Amino acid sequence: MAIHARKLARTASIWARREESRKACLATPWCQEVSGDLEEALRKAELAVLCTPVVHLTEMLGEIGSFLSPDCLVTDVGSTKANICQAASEAKLTSFVGSHPIAGSEKTGLENARANLFANSPCFVTQIENNDSAHSEKVADFWQALEMKVIRSTPEEHDQILAHVSHLPHLLVSTLCHALGNRPKEWSNGCGQGLRDTTRIAAGSPAIWTDIAQQNREEILKALDHFDEESRSLRILLEENDSEKLFRWLDKSKVYRESLD
Amino acid sequence: MAIHARKLARTASIWARREESRKACLATPWCQEVSGDLEEALRKAELAVLCTPVVHLTEMLGEIGSFLSPDCLVTDVGSTKANICQAASEAKLTSFVGSHPIAGSEKTGLENARANLFANSPCFVTQIENNDSAHSEKVADFWQALEMKVIRSTPEEHDQILAHVSHLPHLLVSTLCHALGNRPKEWSNGCGQGLRDTTRIAAGSPAIWTDIAQQNREEILKALDHFDEESRSLRILLEENDSEKLFRWLDKSKVYRESLD
Repeated sequence: MAIHARKLARTASIWARREESRKACLATPWCQEVSGDLEEALRKAELAVLCTPVVHLTEMLGEIGSFLSPDCLVTDVGSTKANICQAASEAKLTSFVGSHPIAGSEKTGLENARANLFANSPCFVTQIENNDSAHSEKVADFWQALEMKVIRSTPEEHDQILAHVSHLPHLLVSTLCHALGNRPKEWSNGCGQGLRDTTRIAAGSPAIWTDIAQQNREEILKALDHFDEESRSLRILLEENDSEKLFRWLDKSKVYRESLD
Repeated sequence: MAIHARKLARTASIWARREESRKACLATPWCQEVSGDLEEALRKAELAVLCTPVVHLTEMLGEIGSFLSPDCLVTDVGSTKANICQAASEAKLTSFVGSHPIAGSEKTGLENARANLFANSPCFVTQIENNDSAHSEKVADFWQALEMKVIRSTPEEHDQILAHVSHLPHLLVSTLCHALGNRPKEWSNGCGQGLRDTTRIAAGSPAIWTDIAQQNREEILKALDHFDEESRSLRILLEENDSEKLFRWLDKSKVYRESLD
């Protein structure tokens, strides 16, 4: 939809596993071809953007090398990068450049698609040593044409950063949902917009997040260690009950939060 | 503003410490009188709504008894209730009924006021044993006239519930801000709307939240214990790396989150 709105491709050819999804795509103005066969969908492609859940991506990367045109650039949108880039290397897909556009919400499916989903959001483009930098330049150009702000990093840096700014926050608010879900049901009648906003991401797809948690568990565990350290400081602050220290601590959080706007 | 929009009072008389605030109020259509003197502001009042930070409220409750008209009903909007209701009891303010409208955001000040701020949001009205229930009925009627959904509880139940659905979430996302604020500054360029929404409340007033943390620290520490227990389960889940268990855990969070909508 975003490619069509910006006239970036002559033909958008969609592969999808389910016939229902293929039919829905073909009924839109932005899709010209559909197929349930990977080879048919990708044979003529100049740019292949793989958007399956991370767990299927590894397998797909192993399959597509045999029929891709040698000039075809391949990228993905997976939420983790080290495992995926490793799988692409093992599959000898030298034209693969791992991407991660940071867009979307807890909502999934075609009915939540928007042509401006990517505008002004960050997109990681991962650079692997020894790979042709012209490939990553082209992939970066593609995301920039969709108005994304490209961040270059190694796959490992990406995974470390995302473990902190995305995966840890997601799992923490899921944990909070467990802590609250185990209390009397009527307590949630007393919650405000704050709790709704804080926990919004916990309504994300459990399948996608199982995948992310498994693919990036080592970095997530390290990020959780950092959180636990800060959590111990909070407990000490509450036990000490010193208003000046509490104020300074809360003020520091506020400064960080405001730096995100 | 909300009272004026619903024509609930003949005269809205505003007390404010700062002259600047009094002038700003008097310039609005919803305020008929202002004063920097509590006695002058409250002498003729039939309903007094105390909206100072919790830390000043205790003092104010001690002061106003001497000049309030005997028919004047008194309520407040403080985020904690046990300490405040206790202070009202000690001040022998028998017509005091503690309230807590769950509305507002991280933004403060007159410039963020909205006449429909309270509509469809919950409001706790606390009932103390031996107090005249006609008083709490009238206070409940007042909030209902502002279109709030009234929840009746004891002050202690209120504090326990809010520790879980509001104070714990706030302090957890503040803790997350500390954990992320201590990592390289450029990492936050990679964050998405998820982190912004999750941490929005951490931009709330440090003064107000210092106050809340201190007034309700015992219940908050107990809520933090519940969270820590769930957090240990998360760590075990990540270490076990069992996709079915992870899926079920994430799905349970999703179900809780969706129950809040």
